[in-house]
Amino acid sequence: MLTDLKREAYEANIALPRHGLINLTFGNASAIDRSRGIFAIKPSGVAYADLRPSHMVLVDLEGRKVEGKLNPSSDTPTHRRLFLAFKKIGGVVHTHSSHATAFAQAGRTIPIFGTTHADYFNGDVPLTRKLTEFEISGAYEWATGNVIVERFLADNLDPLDFPGVLVQRHAPFTWGPTVAKAVEVAVAVECVAHLAYMSLQLNPKLRKIEPELLDKHFKRKHGPAAYYGQK
Amino acid sequence: MLTDLKREAYEANIALPRHGLINLTFGNASAIDRSRGIFAIKPSGVAYADLRPSHMVLVDLEGRKVEGKLNPSSDTPTHRRLFLAFKKIGGVVHTHSSHATAFAQAGRTIPIFGTTHADYFNGDVPLTRKLTEFEISGAYEWATGNVIVERFLADNLDPLDFPGVLVQRHAPFTWGPTVAKAVEVAVAVECVAHLAYMSLQLNPKLRKIEPELLDKHFKRKHGPAAYYGQK
Amino acid sequence: MLTDLKREAYEANIALPRHGLINLTFGNASAIDRSRGIFAIKPSGVAYADLRPSHMVLVDLEGRKVEGKLNPSSDTPTHRRLFLAFKKIGGVVHTHSSHATAFAQAGRTIPIFGTTHADYFNGDVPLTRKLTEFEISGAYEWATGNVIVERFLADNLDPLDFPGVLVQRHAPFTWGPTVAKAVEVAVAVECVAHLAYMSLQLNPKLRKIEPELLDKHFKRKHGPAAYYGQK
Amino acid sequence: MLTDLKREAYEANIALPRHGLINLTFGNASAIDRSRGIFAIKPSGVAYADLRPSHMVLVDLEGRKVEGKLNPSSDTPTHRRLFLAFKKIGGVVHTHSSHATAFAQAGRTIPIFGTTHADYFNGDVPLTRKLTEFEISGAYEWATGNVIVERFLADNLDPLDFPGVLVQRHAPFTWGPTVAKAVEVAVAVECVAHLAYMSLQLNPKLRKIEPELLDKHFKRKHGPAAYYGQK
Repeated sequence: MLTDLKREAYEANIALPRHGLINLTFGNASAIDRSRGIFAIKPSGVAYADLRPSHMVLVDLEGRKVEGKLNPSSDTPTHRRLFLAFKKIGGVVHTHSSHATAFAQAGRTIPIFGTTHADYFNGDVPLTRKLTEFEISGAYEWATGNVIVERFLADNLDPLDFPGVLVQRHAPFTWGPTVAKAVEVAVAVECVAHLAYMSLQLNPKLRKIEPELLDKHFKRKHGPAAYYGQK
Repeated sequence: MLTDLKREAYEANIALPRHGLINLTFGNASAIDRSRGIFAIKPSGVAYADLRPSHMVLVDLEGRKVEGKLNPSSDTPTHRRLFLAFKKIGGVVHTHSSHATAFAQAGRTIPIFGTTHADYFNGDVPLTRKLTEFEISGAYEWATGNVIVERFLADNLDPLDFPGVLVQRHAPFTWGPTVAKAVEVAVAVECVAHLAYMSLQLNPKLRKIEPELLDKHFKRKHGPAAYYGQK
Repeated sequence: MLTDLKREAYEANIALPRHGLINLTFGNASAIDRSRGIFAIKPSGVAYADLRPSHMVLVDLEGRKVEGKLNPSSDTPTHRRLFLAFKKIGGVVHTHSSHATAFAQAGRTIPIFGTTHADYFNGDVPLTRKLTEFEISGAYEWATGNVIVERFLADNLDPLDFPGVLVQRHAPFTWGPTVAKAVEVAVAVECVAHLAYMSLQLNPKLRKIEPELLDKHFKRKHGPAAYYGQK
Repeated sequence: MLTDLKREAYEANIALPRHGLINLTFGNASAIDRSRGIFAIKPSGVAYADLRPSHMVLVDLEGRKVEGKLNPSSDTPTHRRLFLAFKKIGGVVHTHSSHATAFAQAGRTIPIFGTTHADYFNGDVPLTRKLTEFEISGAYEWATGNVIVERFLADNLDPLDFPGVLVQRHAPFTWGPTVAKAVEVAVAVECVAHLAYMSLQLNPKLRKIEPELLDKHFKRKHGPAAYYGQK
């Protein structure tokens, strides 16, 4: 059932260690079939080297396992929360990539300092608030999705203008129209986190990119006036 | 004799350079057969590329070589001391992995700043005191084991809640129910040391993770209420 | 048409990820045939793994596409501007290599601290000014070339003595008599940026290399008295 | 002629990029036959991928080329100077490895903070003074050897207790009884430079290793009481 969707999720998952975004079994990727309201996600705690497309677990938007012998990722409720809130996204990726995770642990957004960043995000990579004791003791992974959604609602951020977030104390989540694009954004987030980290070492008082340059680069790649890439 | 145990120790040893935890011939891993009180350990100063399962040296808990043509690792008494004190562990790993060793040299514990760390340790990665001149001039490697054990007794730390330590001025030791798990923890310790290093650069006054979040993540993976991974 | 030129540009492009200078589809390389006034450049937004020599787009010095099914790199006007201004160069390379890009984002030249740097540049790696709102809103990539040329004219820098530049807020461009040499300089710029970054951490008040040592090393490799390498 | 010596030098040279110590064509290794007073060294400016054992150039201790079609490394006089002054060494290695070169550029010795360092050096990795204008304008590479030798004479350092040095503003040179050992030390110098760099970031006022621990680790591997490795 949904063989293509499972393969798509599988390909995204195994791309994560290949891009150096994953240590051990941290991280997971999922892809959704919007017409059926079902997404395919990595099983929990399985080594990437052992992963097969048939291991992908199918889960519906109510959180019920539809198919699969293995337990889905323990982060499944976070993915589900994001699929429910962000209607235009087709895939979600979670990593513990090193520089992005350092910003998440340190409780800082990734400030936008250059055009590399502006090619992917229309501003800083946002940061969630910390979860409360109550949220942590309850449905923790669902609450993780909630604080992400809350962060986007609070500033009315478009999830395609800001295709990722840092969960404070935890690590990044990224997304996109497809899970392959979410993987690309995960690579970009780690890259811009690395650049921002070094830029701050070189100039601790560095100001953010000028709005007109941000706008130029973001729109070079996104929206009706985009002219980057092949049509 | 004990062919499986030697292979288990061998596999753990060669995993260390593959995970980027080892330069040159630094580091070693050992696996114990508790029923016989014998452990298999890397021979001293042999290049990882030349290592074979049959090179593993068998040593008993009194420190006598039971089998093997080569000299065991010069750190053998440290491994033996740990096997004697920590009854529940089945394997020990020693590396000079770069970020963890930097914390050991600098005389700092690895502070627990995020969930990556909480997935493996129930608090900071502990740090031993320095050895005294007397300890260094005597049975140095045995004394290295002693200061580790002393550290755990002083704060009544459970070695499975804190599956590793930094020996001050030296480098990390890790352990686990099996030597394969001790390798996994060695990877995790290097990873969280890297994250903590960068987090401190981004925020030198960063406070530790909230107790409830630490508790949640540690128990997600350990103990009776664990729900991470496949049953 | 111009098969050799396209292969030369292709080889330079695929060398960039091999040298670790490129993430995702960032970066591009071009090679010019001066007798015809035509250069070959990477198509826009094509993954390096999918690139073939036949994908290279031929563009003339008036900016007209001469051959090729794909759109040329969006940075093509910057390359063209450099080929027009710097008559002695045969190739241009653009990367977002991490340390060099951090200096560009932070608005700092790469200061010349050692002989590694002096083997390639006759001084600091220069930095352009920021582009104005007007420049950004108009022919942005052409203006990017303009601020580079402006920087070289202002200090009367010889493009072969300073075979590269940091575009502020953006990233490095390098060049050379051939595009293969421009790739080599791109590797060197990333290397010296890394060295300068660490040198500044070790000594924030570090002074630049002594003029006589700079002169010695630069002339060991460049100009009539060069004695490095095979004749 | 001297086929084994040329192969030994060749193997050492190609080991340098494999260990990540070399960018581009920086660096070189040489091995000496003491009975004949002839050493084999890398040719100047040849890419490592193109290197063959037969490319090694034979040079005698008076600096005359004995055999070889190619020019020897431009650093040949430095190697020759070291072979003349340090009678017990059999090989010399020069790299621009990143962390060690950063210390050289910053004009700092590599302070000895831990046992990893003490396994290879009986104290800090020494640093030469800067060369004078006169030395730079004359026989520069020979003078580079001179300031190294001067540094060792000034403090009466044994070249086997301190098997390497940082040439200020330039980069490390290492040596050993064999060129293979000199390569191993080059790896160790880069490793301890990386560790020291991070240790200083974690604790800028960090004091050096205790003398008794230094002594213990150095003598565990060197001299009559060594007990590391296989006899």
